[in-house]
Amino acid sequence: MPELRKDPITGRWVIIATGRAKRPSDFSHATVPPPRTGFCPFCPGNESKTPPEVLAFRPGGAANSAGWTLRVVPNKFPALRVEGDLSREGDGMYDRMNGIGAHEVIIETPDHNATFAEMPESQVREVLWAYRSRLLDLRQDKRLRYGVVFKNHGEEAGASLEHPHSQLIALPVIPKRVADELAGARTYFEYKERCIYCDILRQELQSSARLVLETERFAVIQPYAPRFPFETWILPRRHESHFEEADPSTLDNLAWVLRATLRKMDKVLEHAAYNFAVHTAPLQEGALAHHHWHIEVIPKLTRVAGFEWATGFHINPTPPEESAKFLRDVGLV
Amino acid sequence: MPELRKDPITGRWVIIATGRAKRPSDFSHATVPPPRTGFCPFCPGNESKTPPEVLAFRPGGAANSAGWTLRVVPNKFPALRVEGDLSREGDGMYDRMNGIGAHEVIIETPDHNATFAEMPESQVREVLWAYRSRLLDLRQDKRLRYGVVFKNHGEEAGASLEHPHSQLIALPVIPKRVADELAGARTYFEYKERCIYCDILRQELQSSARLVLETERFAVIQPYAPRFPFETWILPRRHESHFEEADPSTLDNLAWVLRATLRKMDKVLEHAAYNFAVHTAPLQEGALAHHHWHIEVIPKLTRVAGFEWATGFHINPTPPEESAKFLRDVGLV
Repeated sequence: MPELRKDPITGRWVIIATGRAKRPSDFSHATVPPPRTGFCPFCPGNESKTPPEVLAFRPGGAANSAGWTLRVVPNKFPALRVEGDLSREGDGMYDRMNGIGAHEVIIETPDHNATFAEMPESQVREVLWAYRSRLLDLRQDKRLRYGVVFKNHGEEAGASLEHPHSQLIALPVIPKRVADELAGARTYFEYKERCIYCDILRQELQSSARLVLETERFAVIQPYAPRFPFETWILPRRHESHFEEADPSTLDNLAWVLRATLRKMDKVLEHAAYNFAVHTAPLQEGALAHHHWHIEVIPKLTRVAGFEWATGFHINPTPPEESAKFLRDVGLV
Repeated sequence: MPELRKDPITGRWVIIATGRAKRPSDFSHATVPPPRTGFCPFCPGNESKTPPEVLAFRPGGAANSAGWTLRVVPNKFPALRVEGDLSREGDGMYDRMNGIGAHEVIIETPDHNATFAEMPESQVREVLWAYRSRLLDLRQDKRLRYGVVFKNHGEEAGASLEHPHSQLIALPVIPKRVADELAGARTYFEYKERCIYCDILRQELQSSARLVLETERFAVIQPYAPRFPFETWILPRRHESHFEEADPSTLDNLAWVLRATLRKMDKVLEHAAYNFAVHTAPLQEGALAHHHWHIEVIPKLTRVAGFEWATGFHINPTPPEESAKFLRDVGLV
């Protein structure tokens, strides 16, 4: 019998197929292919093909020259731009504003053929430091209210260039889904006087049914009401609202945890495309008792169709208890 | 310069690329291929391969035999079932309920090779009557709170069988996106004492910049803040909250309008896959002054990626003023 489950944070329901659940091999999906050769604007030596870098890690040498281990550059075709003044205006009954914001690309490694799951842990750590550093810099611009760091891996997941990269978009408004997440968590906090994510961690660590892995500082789970099969959340065990405030040892541990999670997914799902995003608190807010930063990973296994777009309701053919078991049981090597 | 626009109903923002807007030929998308031959459970003669019909239009002959012009059957692998009692229960801090509801398939025509855009107008009218009739029947079950009729056309849009069909899912809860739509429209109504959709119609018919076509009873527009390129809304000009209350002459006119809209899309977008859904009011509510039923059509031209899933914010590379012009200018034959 199918079952309806409610996401405790946003209040959305999902349908979980408990009858004939889909196993990893039941999904027909495109496997992210090995990289092709050909010209790549993100490869060392082609620094002039991107806008000038806003951050780079390199042992020595001039800016915008080779020798870097990581580069952050503005997106060449940005969805938003930092230049200009933010102006809001009406358009008859409608509302609009100009596209003030930031859109940056984090080039994660000089190695065109690397993947996040396979690059050295030290390189993943550099990427996380770059995320943190860029968010800390951008929050000084008081017009920017929310920053989202995300990665599209594989063409099916929306990546248009194959060289390993993530993106950062900083927005002059709090996006609706983020506002819903914050509002749901605040309502829970007002009622219980506890962080909802801390409560989720407590319950998931106790029961283990949806637990993928745990370390001293992190827990990786399949959420109770996932929209997508194998949707995975990575949560720090200690309450903290802003990712960009994480201390060095937390980021060190996160590098291991994120890499381990993506390796497990790669093995169970045979290199499916995926998206991940850091869900941090709004840039201009101080520490929040009700928000708890985390990373959500979504492998691209199913198609979103008319029902989902119309209702926001998702039909998930794989119960999270089953996907958790697959991911828990697979080894890291 | 890109522009941010706010959907006046739900309050979500989108980024509209006004700089290098994408024209129809810039989208690389799969074209819905001509139908294949092979066994089809929806074709006449194979009635025993589906569950027994709940509605059929046939000039004569026995139920579940050939000779029909339209059939409605329960989904063989339903996401929800009508049998049983609705029970809600806790699961630690979480909430769930059993999967009570209805999941039906509307087999739109006996002709495997037809498409909605190309079938006779009289056949489209039968389909709309079937939608109406099934919603009216299902609302007698007081457990069912919302009914959504939708169509996935083409594999890229989530269709798993190619024989022309739509689906109906009736749910024991109001889905979150629908609740957001209703709440936004109610807030506007409380402030203005007018229906927001009636105001949208007034503005769009006056300016024509986003108008695709109009008839005596309907207007077809590109919304001000569309999530997707060529997203299209079909709105009745007279205020009415429930699709299933539409009178015969309204449905007659809708058959022409819906078919004309899909024909125009087929021509401009070279047979791209699409989804459409009827946005009606909740099944158990009486006439609402603040909701106005409509149909939303979404062609499948872009990929939804990490940014959209994390924030609910969409980046739309085609301003609705440009897509409206393409659709307005293309002929119907």
